[in-house]
Amino acid sequence: MRINKTIALGTILASLSLGAAHAQSVDPKLVVIDARQSFMSLVAFYSAPLGAMDKGSMPYDAAAASAAANQIVALTSLDQTGLWEAGTDRAYDESSLALSALWEPTADLNGKLAALRETSLALQAAAGTDLATMQTALASFNDTCKACHGDFKFKPPK
Amino acid sequence: MRINKTIALGTILASLSLGAAHAQSVDPKLVVIDARQSFMSLVAFYSAPLGAMDKGSMPYDAAAASAAANQIVALTSLDQTGLWEAGTDRAYDESSLALSALWEPTADLNGKLAALRETSLALQAAAGTDLATMQTALASFNDTCKACHGDFKFKPPK
Repeated sequence: MRINKTIALGTILASLSLGAAHAQSVDPKLVVIDARQSFMSLVAFYSAPLGAMDKGSMPYDAAAASAAANQIVALTSLDQTGLWEAGTDRAYDESSLALSALWEPTADLNGKLAALRETSLALQAAAGTDLATMQTALASFNDTCKACHGDFKFKPPK
Repeated sequence: MRINKTIALGTILASLSLGAAHAQSVDPKLVVIDARQSFMSLVAFYSAPLGAMDKGSMPYDAAAASAAANQIVALTSLDQTGLWEAGTDRAYDESSLALSALWEPTADLNGKLAALRETSLALQAAAGTDLATMQTALASFNDTCKACHGDFKFKPPK
């Protein structure tokens, strides 16, 4: 099952603004899964210019690189607590790509989220310097993405 | 058609981290639509505690209310330019709920986004004061949501 974002969002907004009781009809765990995936989508969206500069498909532009990194930091600085609620893994619902093992203590989820934020701050500091400096910081940032996605994100069969 | 977020995100991340040429295979306008909906989902997600306090389904908590408003401001302070790219309306693809009229000059999209940010800043200032003050500011914030959703968001037939 995949959560219908339109319905979920409409229901949440309705409950916010109209005081309706509809929010109870949406599984809160599916809302968390959707919010987490929304977070990931936005990080990817605002990272795209840096990826394009890194690959050379867009010329390096210090101001644009800094602006992109600022957006990434705004996102990685969000309170992540609710986005990673236990029990919102793929074992609960297959709309989730997060494997259950991510919530084992040895996976150090909080450490991974801290690393994501730290490398995004380093990226923010580096982005406007020059292309090579940005690329090095972007590589570290991407490594923190991969550190989690490699072992803890479901890979669909090819 | 509805964009497959998993595929889109995976493709973007692959293009970022692996230098692959896959990004060209995803329609950039569908990526914008997905990012915009992700933004809306996150605003709703982080607003939910304030809605619950407003309705009385959660006791008012000044620190929690302030924390929620801080997250909302972080989101409404994101650079919205790319999220509202012209041509990403429902006339382009029905995964979009944004009606074409939103991009008419008379709709004043930028003014609506500015109002969203301003009322979120007022909400941030008010959230930790007391329940009534938070409720008044939340109502103004919700009004800016409705000012756009009322006329410019597609309503599915009931």
